[in-house]
Amino acid sequence: MKLWEKKSKLNRQIEEFTVGNDYLLDQRLVKYDCKASIAHAKMLHKIGILKKEEARKLVSGLEEIIGLDSRGKFRIKKEGEDCHTAIENYLTKKYGDAGKKIHTARSRNDQVLAALRLYYKDELKDCKELVNELNVSIKDKLKEYGAVKLPGYTHTRKAMPSLIKQWLDSFAKSMKDNLKILDVSMKLIDQCPLGTGAGYGLPIKVDREYTAKELGFKKVQKNPIYVQNSRGKFESTILHGLSQIMLDLNKISTDLILFSMPEFGYFELPKEICTGSSIMPHKQNPDVLELVRGSYHEINSYESRVKDIIGNLISGYNRDLQLTKEPVMKGFDKTKQCLSIMNLVIQKIKVNKGKCKDGLTEEVFATEKAYELVKKGMPFREAYKKVSEKY
Amino acid sequence: MKLWEKKSKLNRQIEEFTVGNDYLLDQRLVKYDCKASIAHAKMLHKIGILKKEEARKLVSGLEEIIGLDSRGKFRIKKEGEDCHTAIENYLTKKYGDAGKKIHTARSRNDQVLAALRLYYKDELKDCKELVNELNVSIKDKLKEYGAVKLPGYTHTRKAMPSLIKQWLDSFAKSMKDNLKILDVSMKLIDQCPLGTGAGYGLPIKVDREYTAKELGFKKVQKNPIYVQNSRGKFESTILHGLSQIMLDLNKISTDLILFSMPEFGYFELPKEICTGSSIMPHKQNPDVLELVRGSYHEINSYESRVKDIIGNLISGYNRDLQLTKEPVMKGFDKTKQCLSIMNLVIQKIKVNKGKCKDGLTEEVFATEKAYELVKKGMPFREAYKKVSEKY
Amino acid sequence: MKLWEKKSKLNRQIEEFTVGNDYLLDQRLVKYDCKASIAHAKMLHKIGILKKEEARKLVSGLEEIIGLDSRGKFRIKKEGEDCHTAIENYLTKKYGDAGKKIHTARSRNDQVLAALRLYYKDELKDCKELVNELNVSIKDKLKEYGAVKLPGYTHTRKAMPSLIKQWLDSFAKSMKDNLKILDVSMKLIDQCPLGTGAGYGLPIKVDREYTAKELGFKKVQKNPIYVQNSRGKFESTILHGLSQIMLDLNKISTDLILFSMPEFGYFELPKEICTGSSIMPHKQNPDVLELVRGSYHEINSYESRVKDIIGNLISGYNRDLQLTKEPVMKGFDKTKQCLSIMNLVIQKIKVNKGKCKDGLTEEVFATEKAYELVKKGMPFREAYKKVSEKY
Amino acid sequence: MKLWEKKSKLNRQIEEFTVGNDYLLDQRLVKYDCKASIAHAKMLHKIGILKKEEARKLVSGLEEIIGLDSRGKFRIKKEGEDCHTAIENYLTKKYGDAGKKIHTARSRNDQVLAALRLYYKDELKDCKELVNELNVSIKDKLKEYGAVKLPGYTHTRKAMPSLIKQWLDSFAKSMKDNLKILDVSMKLIDQCPLGTGAGYGLPIKVDREYTAKELGFKKVQKNPIYVQNSRGKFESTILHGLSQIMLDLNKISTDLILFSMPEFGYFELPKEICTGSSIMPHKQNPDVLELVRGSYHEINSYESRVKDIIGNLISGYNRDLQLTKEPVMKGFDKTKQCLSIMNLVIQKIKVNKGKCKDGLTEEVFATEKAYELVKKGMPFREAYKKVSEKY
Repeated sequence: MKLWEKKSKLNRQIEEFTVGNDYLLDQRLVKYDCKASIAHAKMLHKIGILKKEEARKLVSGLEEIIGLDSRGKFRIKKEGEDCHTAIENYLTKKYGDAGKKIHTARSRNDQVLAALRLYYKDELKDCKELVNELNVSIKDKLKEYGAVKLPGYTHTRKAMPSLIKQWLDSFAKSMKDNLKILDVSMKLIDQCPLGTGAGYGLPIKVDREYTAKELGFKKVQKNPIYVQNSRGKFESTILHGLSQIMLDLNKISTDLILFSMPEFGYFELPKEICTGSSIMPHKQNPDVLELVRGSYHEINSYESRVKDIIGNLISGYNRDLQLTKEPVMKGFDKTKQCLSIMNLVIQKIKVNKGKCKDGLTEEVFATEKAYELVKKGMPFREAYKKVSEKY
Repeated sequence: MKLWEKKSKLNRQIEEFTVGNDYLLDQRLVKYDCKASIAHAKMLHKIGILKKEEARKLVSGLEEIIGLDSRGKFRIKKEGEDCHTAIENYLTKKYGDAGKKIHTARSRNDQVLAALRLYYKDELKDCKELVNELNVSIKDKLKEYGAVKLPGYTHTRKAMPSLIKQWLDSFAKSMKDNLKILDVSMKLIDQCPLGTGAGYGLPIKVDREYTAKELGFKKVQKNPIYVQNSRGKFESTILHGLSQIMLDLNKISTDLILFSMPEFGYFELPKEICTGSSIMPHKQNPDVLELVRGSYHEINSYESRVKDIIGNLISGYNRDLQLTKEPVMKGFDKTKQCLSIMNLVIQKIKVNKGKCKDGLTEEVFATEKAYELVKKGMPFREAYKKVSEKY
Repeated sequence: MKLWEKKSKLNRQIEEFTVGNDYLLDQRLVKYDCKASIAHAKMLHKIGILKKEEARKLVSGLEEIIGLDSRGKFRIKKEGEDCHTAIENYLTKKYGDAGKKIHTARSRNDQVLAALRLYYKDELKDCKELVNELNVSIKDKLKEYGAVKLPGYTHTRKAMPSLIKQWLDSFAKSMKDNLKILDVSMKLIDQCPLGTGAGYGLPIKVDREYTAKELGFKKVQKNPIYVQNSRGKFESTILHGLSQIMLDLNKISTDLILFSMPEFGYFELPKEICTGSSIMPHKQNPDVLELVRGSYHEINSYESRVKDIIGNLISGYNRDLQLTKEPVMKGFDKTKQCLSIMNLVIQKIKVNKGKCKDGLTEEVFATEKAYELVKKGMPFREAYKKVSEKY
Repeated sequence: MKLWEKKSKLNRQIEEFTVGNDYLLDQRLVKYDCKASIAHAKMLHKIGILKKEEARKLVSGLEEIIGLDSRGKFRIKKEGEDCHTAIENYLTKKYGDAGKKIHTARSRNDQVLAALRLYYKDELKDCKELVNELNVSIKDKLKEYGAVKLPGYTHTRKAMPSLIKQWLDSFAKSMKDNLKILDVSMKLIDQCPLGTGAGYGLPIKVDREYTAKELGFKKVQKNPIYVQNSRGKFESTILHGLSQIMLDLNKISTDLILFSMPEFGYFELPKEICTGSSIMPHKQNPDVLELVRGSYHEINSYESRVKDIIGNLISGYNRDLQLTKEPVMKGFDKTKQCLSIMNLVIQKIKVNKGKCKDGLTEEVFATEKAYELVKKGMPFREAYKKVSEKY
């Protein structure tokens, strides 16, 4: 039974369409929704809505659900609509009136945001850890091969001498800047939405500071309209952060795909990370890198989707916002997978010193030659012209 | 066992990452892959690669798989990698050497395109049918309410008198134009890729015309590089067609959401297609329309994703292309769902004649007043100015 | 003076903001707007709104403007707002009452669509011609180098032997398919919008068939709401067609950038199409190809922009639609430039036969070896495994 | 003459294509490029490359150019290619050898980044100021009308009572969060790229700390590859910040367009900010708001464009990056315009207290009624059901 179910029956086809795959996506929110509900129940007791015993029952019921869920035993069914309905129904069935009181002083609109933000915080922390772990592998590789010289390229043409160290370190630095972008998302979502109801406040006074503190939010997001308007908005900033990580992984992949070609051979991908062809017996393909490369665009499409969904909509909750849930969840999943796999790839790749050296053909040093003339006092532009005559 | 598996072992994590959710997505390709394989087997017999008995065995094995699949009994497992591997393994296990011959004169690169295009053709046909069915409902509604006058809006402001007929018919016409866009995708994909191998032809002569005819393709796509380069490209044109359908559904939804507000009341959404709120007891929300509206952006993001994935890649197959499969499949699913649901909505909505009439307030006729002066001989611009003084 | 100017004064800042760069963009519409106005004036005479003499004056005034414009002497000023206002003001100033009548039985909403579609038709024809010219250069190059063998790549790894012919022809074929996509846009826009006014018809009977025929449109677009709703919609389909052309140019560029690296050397870019570096004296950079490659994404962003602007809007004209003009114009400009420049590049590039031959290293023939075993009767999968042992 | 011009002549058509509109876009960089060059010249003197007199000449020449430019007298011509070439040529012409030395120890690759980042810093500061000014207007309006009650909407349906204060304040809060997003871009770009050359360092030792300090950068961006790889990357983060501002402006516009319809009348747009129709004499259209609304999508398309251009590219400078300049410049221009115009709109709009009150129809208080029952001890879900029976 839906929370909002009335006497008139909803058309079955409409019901299925509006539920969509929410009941599946929400599975990963169960834990967070229970945590938020526990804080909410305690607060309801604090302000006198719930009796001590009722609060105790609800808290224990919610902990029970967390336990069931951790063992895969709390499955939201299609008829259950979403995690909020499933949880309230469970509590009401088991604890009667106490269950019917849990939704006092909240709406699914603020409730889902609380669960989502708790989930996002965990995911962002995971991402940051994975970034740091990747940087450890980069640093290890750097120790091993950092001093190897190889040609640097501009315009996909040999430019000037570079070093493995320079290449690896460029990504380590970029990843550190990505953490700053993730931090701003973290700062934005670290505001507690609970207590704003459907988007226009509640007809009852609640203790918002208490709930926020219980849940570990840095602050209360006071304005109820902003709470709703920030849905999708914050998600797009999260996805922007993820897309920056993916951009760097895209570039590492593009570099490795090219420079591990036998025609260059600067890098070697061991067989255990290469896949073959169904027709060509000789192939060792860098599928893993191609998939990471392509995944950058997947994440970008999630950011765009969210930004487009929330455009041209009036303030306040609109159901379109439900469609912003899936892209963020998928964005986290894919980014985390790619960070992990790239960590493995970085550990596995080898640098072929001989090939790197062979790559340092004479023209790579043309600029150095010009600077030798500069050091002897020739104006740079003249030195440049002099050396360029050769090419 | 993978088709390309060699002695060296693939790293487990890499394996899982590269398979991704392919084994799930490919489930719906099983049928099409079998059909293409049947045509391929017959052709292999025709050119003397397969003995009669071998071809017979393979055809019957493939029909068996189609049967199993239709009863949900041919499940591709993660270890099975994709439908191609799963099918070849099944055939080899059951029919020995004949199974080991099925992949003669093809690569997964042309094979998957054949299966995908057969699948796309069916999906495009479904979409066209659903568009036509929607147009039937529009026509029915038009018979019922077509003559009702209501204000037309520009800039979200009352402009001039309009008719329900004009409104409904605008979508019927637009949907008909959408069919033309779908037709161009159909024309593009109606080229048989089989016989081009991995993208550079085959070291063996095959009868491409035969296979194409067997599978009902209009023509053979001769150039093997183009076969591979058209992957993603054709998909993006399909998605463009779907996004045009979704644009129209987005607009119907946006119109209905606005003009079924009690503040206008031109349209009425019966309760059976409205959903409620978890906190506000009075709500009748048009969630179904909001979700259709938002889904337009989902489809757009699929088109963009495909276009971005295939950019900046050299000719020939690159594994990135695998990532174009999911957005097209999801694009079809969502578009078909939205077409169905909008068909239902159109059948259910009511026009409130009284409210439409009330909406025709005096300023809606200002232009008519100017034209009365024009008919009496006043230059239009003067008539316009004269009438405008009132406002 | 604006067409719609009333007694109350528009705020100056608002005026500038709303005009935006329309007065600049509209410069290229002057010619088309005049042509549409000539047809409109004739029609107004035919239905008795304009006297013979008035129609004659207007037609000659409009031809005068076309002449002025062709010599760069009809400049729309910021105060002139857009081409429609500038033209009507010119006519009224010069011909008095006749000028004040030209806007009878039309709105800027249908007028601008007429001008735009005439412009689009010319642009689409140009694009088709440029595509055909490119294909001529491709064919010429094919005659010169078609028979040269070189390695084909999958996964950016050598796969099987290919031919310059195969590579060049793949783009010729793809470009021919692109023409089909352009044709569907042409079909869509070849509908005359004139006579639908602001989007809800006119309070006066006009002869729409006549105007359509005069302007060379295939048919009348009857439904006035659809006329307005198709703005942006048709533009997005045009841009989709352009993006397909650009995708192919992106791929040619990507191929050439890679395979003209000295490390491969299959292609040679003569110095006259390469640019240098400000610091490195030896550089010969393929900037032209990199810019074509990047321009694909520019066109994609125009298509997305149009699709996003028109989403979540109610039926009928909304001023947001004005913002769809620039992306299409820029889309045409850039695509035409890139087609021209690629034509030149194709003419200039050389194939290095020696390097191509050197590229055909032994593993490129691994599949052929497997097929030799197949021809001797070994099942393909066994032959594959046997050959693969070597790698 | 190009900086890199050699004996062989560049094809004229290629030249025009590669220059593109750079010579126009770069006009606004002249000032910043001169400032960076002044710091560079001083540093070159410090490390002994330039004699005191040479440095003095260059500094005074560069200040001269800044002066000329501020009076519109330093026009970059198409043949001048870009601002860097134009400036070096000016210096060389006027000061001979000193001019030929200015490009010592730099490449256009690090030079342009320095100019761009100085420009971005100014633009970001402007944006922040405009956001703050908008918030002042919001606060002023809030003082005037904050206490007015009106209905809040969810799902475009009346939900619960809201306040003008709540609505205005939601945007003020959101804008403050936007500043945090802008700050992260500021932090990222506040790294000095000078001294990294073409992307692989310089064959000469320079004093990077000195130049960074002279130019007011917070820190030196040490890794030369990262300097180049961060082009496009940082731009996309800037554009993400701008798109967040635009999202809020899009929402204010969407709200105002709807709720200033006479059918609601909560807000009034005075005539001086409305525009008219060319055919309908009565119209008062909110064009300004529609254009702001649509501009959100323009900014989003710039962000996507940049992200797509930089994907699938190897490390180091690629000319594709040049195409990221225009979207950022246009993004700043449009965002600043929209912030200014919205500031004006907020100042001009009026709240119609009577209409707001009329909007508070009975069902808006349904939730309050349920809470009255809750306060009497009824479990919320029962209270909800009881009240809902009425609807």
